[in-house]
Amino acid sequence: MRIDIITVLPELMESPFNASILSRAKEKGIVEVYFHNLRDYTDNTYKQVDDYQYGGGAGMVLMIEPIDKCISGLQKERQYDEIIYMTPDGTTLDQKLANQLSLHENIIILCGHYKGVDQRVRDKFITKEISIGDYVLSGGELGAAVLCDAVIRLLPGVLNDETSALTDSFQDNLLAPPVYTRPADYKGMKVPDLLLSGNFPKIEKWREEQALERTQRLRPDLLK
Amino acid sequence: MRIDIITVLPELMESPFNASILSRAKEKGIVEVYFHNLRDYTDNTYKQVDDYQYGGGAGMVLMIEPIDKCISGLQKERQYDEIIYMTPDGTTLDQKLANQLSLHENIIILCGHYKGVDQRVRDKFITKEISIGDYVLSGGELGAAVLCDAVIRLLPGVLNDETSALTDSFQDNLLAPPVYTRPADYKGMKVPDLLLSGNFPKIEKWREEQALERTQRLRPDLLK
Repeated sequence: MRIDIITVLPELMESPFNASILSRAKEKGIVEVYFHNLRDYTDNTYKQVDDYQYGGGAGMVLMIEPIDKCISGLQKERQYDEIIYMTPDGTTLDQKLANQLSLHENIIILCGHYKGVDQRVRDKFITKEISIGDYVLSGGELGAAVLCDAVIRLLPGVLNDETSALTDSFQDNLLAPPVYTRPADYKGMKVPDLLLSGNFPKIEKWREEQALERTQRLRPDLLK
Repeated sequence: MRIDIITVLPELMESPFNASILSRAKEKGIVEVYFHNLRDYTDNTYKQVDDYQYGGGAGMVLMIEPIDKCISGLQKERQYDEIIYMTPDGTTLDQKLANQLSLHENIIILCGHYKGVDQRVRDKFITKEISIGDYVLSGGELGAAVLCDAVIRLLPGVLNDETSALTDSFQDNLLAPPVYTRPADYKGMKVPDLLLSGNFPKIEKWREEQALERTQRLRPDLLK
C-alpha cells in the first residue's frame, strides 16, 4: 500500500510515523508513506499557501492552486483509489471504513489546516471526506496519523501476532473483555480466579459474556 | 493547565507537541505538558512494563505496578481533576467533552498500548475513560495527542484569533459552511458571486443557510 500525505506541517507528523507499528510496517515494506509539503508547490516568493476567506471572517483558507499542482502531479505517476480530505464534516471513521481502506493500493490524504481548504478543492479532487470524530482539531495532520494507524495495522504482516487485531474492540461490534496480567494479587486486588484456573473453554465463555455485558452497559448502540 | 501523559512510547508523541498550536500554547505558558515514560517506574532489570494476559490469548497487557508508582507519585505533588485512560471502549470524545475538560487545572492521561492495561488499574485509578472514535489504534498515544489538541486549542489565548474557534464545526452543533479564497476564478471554477459582493449581512445569512443545509444533508443526527 502507498499513502501520499499532503500537508503544510509535515514536521508535525514525523514521530508517529517513526515509532511503533507504523515504522515497522515501513521497514517490512508493507506500506510506503510519502509526505508532500504544500509549500513546495507554490510559485510565489513567500511560499504562501493560504489566504483570507472571501466574504470576511476569521481564519485562513488553503488555496486551490498548490493543492491542484501536488495532486495532479501525483496522479500523473499512478492511479489513486481514493483522494481523502480530513475534515470534521466528513464521514466518521469507524472500524468498517478502516477495513475497507486497508484493501486499497494507493491513497492520497489531504490535511486541512486553519479554516480548511477552498471548497473548489473538495468539489474537484476529493473522492472521500473523513472525520475521525465530532471534535475540532487544529489541523488534519493528527487525523491523518490516526487514519493511517487504524488502516496500516490491519495490513497482513504488520502486527506480530495476526490474531491480535481480530480480538480487538469493534472487529465484531463488541467491546473487548477485561484483561489482567501479573501479579495475581496486587495490594489485595485480585485477578478473577477463573482466569488462573487453566479451564480455557470456561475462560473463553467468560470473556464472551464480559464483552457482551460491557457492550450492553457502555455502548448499547453497537449491538443494534 | 497542566497535563501529565503516561506512556511507553513518549517518542511517538514528540512532534505533535513540538509543532503548531500545541508548541505555541506551551511557549505562551498557557499549558504545561509532561511525559512520563512508564519504563522509568519499573524495578526489574529489563524495565519490563507488560506481561502476558492471564487465561491465555494474544497481546500483552500493561502491568499495574509501574502505573501505580507513576500515578501515586504525581498525586503526592498535586490534586488532579481527572485521571483519564485512552481506550476504545471509553466515552466517545466530542466537542462538549473537550469544552468540559478545557476547564480543568490538572489532568493525567494514561495511554494504553498492546492489549491495554490491567483491569485493576481502571478499577482503582481511572476517573474517566475516553475514546476518540469507534476504531482501534495501536496505542493510546495518538488518541492522547488528539485529545490534547482538541482541549488545548480551546484555552483562552491559544488561537491567534479568538473568534476562530467559535465559528468551528460542532461549537453550535452545525457543520461549518463552505469557504473560498483567492483566486476568484480558477480554471473556470468560480467563487459564488455573493461572497465577492461586500454585502455582509447577506453573506452572513448565506453562511447560516449553508451550514444548516450541510448539516441536514451530511449529519442530521447533530440537529436532534
